Amino acid sequence: MASMILKSISPNTTKLGFIGVGVMGQSMAAHLMKHGYAMTVYSRTASKCAALVEAGAKLARSPKEVAEQSDIIFSIVGYPKDVESVMLGSSETGARDAVIDGVRPGSIVVDMTTSKPSIAKRLHELFKEKSVFSMDCPVSGGDIGARNAALTIMCGGDQEVFDALVPVLQCMGKTVRLMGGPGMGQATKCANQTMIASTMVGVCEALLFAHKSGLNVEDVIAVLSGGAAQCFSLTSYGPRILKGDMKPGFYVEHFVKDMKIVLEECDRMGIVLPGLTQAKMLYEILIAQGGGRLGTQALMLALEKLNNIEFVPKNL
Amino acid sequence: MASMILKSISPNTTKLGFIGVGVMGQSMAAHLMKHGYAMTVYSRTASKCAALVEAGAKLARSPKEVAEQSDIIFSIVGYPKDVESVMLGSSETGARDAVIDGVRPGSIVVDMTTSKPSIAKRLHELFKEKSVFSMDCPVSGGDIGARNAALTIMCGGDQEVFDALVPVLQCMGKTVRLMGGPGMGQATKCANQTMIASTMVGVCEALLFAHKSGLNVEDVIAVLSGGAAQCFSLTSYGPRILKGDMKPGFYVEHFVKDMKIVLEECDRMGIVLPGLTQAKMLYEILIAQGGGRLGTQALMLALEKLNNIEFVPKNL
Repeated sequence: MASMILKSISPNTTKLGFIGVGVMGQSMAAHLMKHGYAMTVYSRTASKCAALVEAGAKLARSPKEVAEQSDIIFSIVGYPKDVESVMLGSSETGARDAVIDGVRPGSIVVDMTTSKPSIAKRLHELFKEKSVFSMDCPVSGGDIGARNAALTIMCGGDQEVFDALVPVLQCMGKTVRLMGGPGMGQATKCANQTMIASTMVGVCEALLFAHKSGLNVEDVIAVLSGGAAQCFSLTSYGPRILKGDMKPGFYVEHFVKDMKIVLEECDRMGIVLPGLTQAKMLYEILIAQGGGRLGTQALMLALEKLNNIEFVPKNL
Repeated sequence: MASMILKSISPNTTKLGFIGVGVMGQSMAAHLMKHGYAMTVYSRTASKCAALVEAGAKLARSPKEVAEQSDIIFSIVGYPKDVESVMLGSSETGARDAVIDGVRPGSIVVDMTTSKPSIAKRLHELFKEKSVFSMDCPVSGGDIGARNAALTIMCGGDQEVFDALVPVLQCMGKTVRLMGGPGMGQATKCANQTMIASTMVGVCEALLFAHKSGLNVEDVIAVLSGGAAQCFSLTSYGPRILKGDMKPGFYVEHFVKDMKIVLEECDRMGIVLPGLTQAKMLYEILIAQGGGRLGTQALMLALEKLNNIEFVPKNL
């Protein structure tokens, strides 16, 4: 690390890059631009970059090009294999168009995808060999959190790099915290998804029970939110469920990906989490029923089918 | 109902009774007394009444005696069979010392135990025959909520009775809401417990994962509480778990009782709730391991044993 020098960061001198501009990345990159940072963006689906390009971002044709143009390279893509692909390239095609092919010494690579702790550790090692800093900084808070720059950002990496990055991360998140060395941001995100998985099961089961009991479910959400059952998932997703709004803030298929990562880690560490295991199964049932591209609140649809109940409006 | 007249309620003229002064009832009765109400108390274990008697409450020798002395009779006891016993008497002993044996026309009976919706409906019918009003008003918020008069109170019964009771209920709770007719308070509490059951599984699994990953679990609680995983159970029980504080705010055996009530209702209504079913099983494992009289946060101990991990301090 002796030869690695952190450049000071400011909107005047620091150029940012963003790889992956889906539901989350779109809002996050926009917030960084609003703070005055020059931005280069890349997406596999170039059309997704249109709004950001219109707002002044440069369009890159590859992750490599983003890396060449940027002092800090952010990524938030779909799956762990996508992280490997944009960062290290595809071993299949052998193309040299990944971040690692273009990144300059002293740059910082910040992967915000929910990915495997083991990948984060490997990236840290590989980038370090190129005198490049890297951190794993997955986020929580969904589409609403991204839109309102109110994300929780869980960081793994070196303290000095974290300290330098904080002002930039705070453009996107309200809670920004270093959780430990490389991979520890991802491990924290794993704990976060474990918590949410069982909570979502609880939300949907509670609402289904309330409906079947003949209660006014809207009232039930209100009263439960004032007591020991209170949780973000209930207040955030409960009303959407009642309206039949299953639009993705967070895709079911991405959530299942996350749960698979956690359960893979559990396997590796030799622990069993029954609640998470069952939640993953219920969400896989939802995918089998065609719900993979709906939002995570659509778990209610799987519980409805399981119980042969029609409860949520289907007109949206 | 024509002959049933609601008396106006005020600390000057209305005498209250309280049956069951355990962890919850103790604090709740004390709050009512602080608001100036005369109070008569009864507990199967008379010694539990000592503090309230010292504060000026009259000690009754039976639920019947409480009913004879009181315009409003509250109860918060252990199990549905205890509710039946204090309200209607034991069919085994044939003793005539229950509430129904002493209650006067125009009085209001308010059962705050978490009990079966069907029992609440039956009590409503039986008391109505005696020109006595009755409501089911189970609570949420645990020992902390009871101590701070911040409970959520979920009410089932008649609107006019509810309206009259609100100022009294507000002495104990922050959120007081009529959910529907007789039994609907209990049905709402069922939904509440369904929500909490899976949430507690999520809390314990998330913390176990975090510990096993080598994270600082206190930091994980802090960061998760700022995002989409945020819930009352995590912020309220997480820190107690880390300290090894398994003292009961809410007994494991009472929680299992609640989950059994919900699953009985599910059976009756013909629905399946996989998360609740599994949560009940995990809590029953905890009881099998001797944890029935611990607080619900002790679920962590069952998960520890299941995974052969020693994580939480055992010195308390």
